[in-house]
Amino acid sequence: MSLTERDQNNTVQDHYRSRSGLKAHFIDRTDPVVYAAEPTAAPISEKLVQQYDEQGFIILEDLFSAREVAGFQQELDRLRHDEEIKASGETITEPDSGDVRSIFRIHEISPLFKKLAADARLAGLAQYLLDDQVYIHQSRLNYKPGFRGKEFYWHSDFETWHVEDGMPAMRALSMSITLTANDESNGPLLLIPGSQRKYVVCEGHTPAEHFRSSLKKQEYGVPSDECLSHLAEQGGIVTATGKPGSVILFDCNIMHGSNGNITPFPRSNAFFVYNALSNRVVDPFCDQAPRPEYICTRRQIKPLTVQQSGNNHG
Amino acid sequence: MSLTERDQNNTVQDHYRSRSGLKAHFIDRTDPVVYAAEPTAAPISEKLVQQYDEQGFIILEDLFSAREVAGFQQELDRLRHDEEIKASGETITEPDSGDVRSIFRIHEISPLFKKLAADARLAGLAQYLLDDQVYIHQSRLNYKPGFRGKEFYWHSDFETWHVEDGMPAMRALSMSITLTANDESNGPLLLIPGSQRKYVVCEGHTPAEHFRSSLKKQEYGVPSDECLSHLAEQGGIVTATGKPGSVILFDCNIMHGSNGNITPFPRSNAFFVYNALSNRVVDPFCDQAPRPEYICTRRQIKPLTVQQSGNNHG
Repeated sequence: MSLTERDQNNTVQDHYRSRSGLKAHFIDRTDPVVYAAEPTAAPISEKLVQQYDEQGFIILEDLFSAREVAGFQQELDRLRHDEEIKASGETITEPDSGDVRSIFRIHEISPLFKKLAADARLAGLAQYLLDDQVYIHQSRLNYKPGFRGKEFYWHSDFETWHVEDGMPAMRALSMSITLTANDESNGPLLLIPGSQRKYVVCEGHTPAEHFRSSLKKQEYGVPSDECLSHLAEQGGIVTATGKPGSVILFDCNIMHGSNGNITPFPRSNAFFVYNALSNRVVDPFCDQAPRPEYICTRRQIKPLTVQQSGNNHG
Repeated sequence: MSLTERDQNNTVQDHYRSRSGLKAHFIDRTDPVVYAAEPTAAPISEKLVQQYDEQGFIILEDLFSAREVAGFQQELDRLRHDEEIKASGETITEPDSGDVRSIFRIHEISPLFKKLAADARLAGLAQYLLDDQVYIHQSRLNYKPGFRGKEFYWHSDFETWHVEDGMPAMRALSMSITLTANDESNGPLLLIPGSQRKYVVCEGHTPAEHFRSSLKKQEYGVPSDECLSHLAEQGGIVTATGKPGSVILFDCNIMHGSNGNITPFPRSNAFFVYNALSNRVVDPFCDQAPRPEYICTRRQIKPLTVQQSGNNHG
């Protein structure tokens, strides 16, 4: 049975109900994590593919040259000081300080990040793992300021993309390209290995225009304390650290979050969500209007033409 | 010139003015870090003494037996579920949840922790480093809950003990005995090595009854962003991790703090502040009344009689 099976009214079935009044519980994942059938054709080592399958994430270092990373960082600085972007209504600011926290749609508004999104090292790998053409479901620059950077509580991205965006199945993945050093003290990404195999049904309902607050602080679509404890006791917690330019590749359903950041050192990354074209979004699986296009690509789905990176290493 | 020199009115001079309307700046420390004159008599290795002198902290593992650590943990559980203690007015709770965060005066209210405070492994080492008889300036159990544990912003303990308690000089140190695993993800202590040599003059003034809010969230007596950045760029940031029963020994003026804790795993420790008897508190160096006795020993100063730990290893 395909997970995007439609009923007689041509409606995609909801196999991952959440925030629908049910008590918190787990649903075992039936979707694969790795869709690729031929391990020999992988653009990364078989061992890494296996690790991704089992743990739900891998960290790739040295994918980019120092010059490329410097270019990403310059582009980050340019974008976060662009007054037009700040005023666009597509930028998220810190609850207290008003500092820029996230800039969306960087695969559209920035020529550099548009090129990066289609780069074979990222998009080619996504195509392989998802065994399909891919498009960008969401992209953004995250800038977690130092001193007073807030925590981001545990969540599965897929839970939100499913409920609020109408993503039918778990056939999507994220790539976070670190643009500053991510070390153990400046609020790095925390991941629970293996948690991608359990779907956590969340309590509560989705309020209207939830995205206006959830991108600053998530209060709905978060796991119960009991579910979270169970996952962490089973899988432990991994701190994703790395030098600038590392790629943290993680499955759409892995449980993750991050502590705050009181160090003076900001933590920034570029973030691309690749979704399989066959898994394109339908109507949200909740009673709310779809989130805006800058948060969830819906009307302008464009399969990526993968670009070989050529002689960029310099 | 002694740092506790008195003027013609018999008033102890304030060599570390802070929160007195001055702009944030550094004062070079003139007090020693290690007071002991004879390194050969040290109860720990010379190398560790040197490391403490240079970095302002050391982490001692395996000082206690597994049986002893289990005893401390049981006592922690007993105390934090004691309704009388909870209602005593000497207990600090989390701003949001109301969970117990700190219990004070454990060297008085708990026979076990009273014995631990005087144990040669701790008190003997404090005597050695401070080259004086010692007493407990403050003691507490810290319980940092999982899921929603809040951050504790950067500060020098001495700045508060000087301004609010009237501790004349930097001749005190803290020992934190970890009672749960402290790992990189559950909000461990962050320290800036070498920062004990710089006194950060803080801006603002001390509000009345500051202790009622400062023990939950410190807003006065915190370093400016510029001062903090300078210290962190010079010294870096160290994450103090360790298995249960580790002792983190740190100088009274080292800059430290901790990020929040979204993991399900609480972080607890027992905390003793040893002050040199010759450095006993005088009137506060601000225009406020002294803090209560449970936060700062003032009327009941009792030099510790160091107890050999004997055959406790089991």
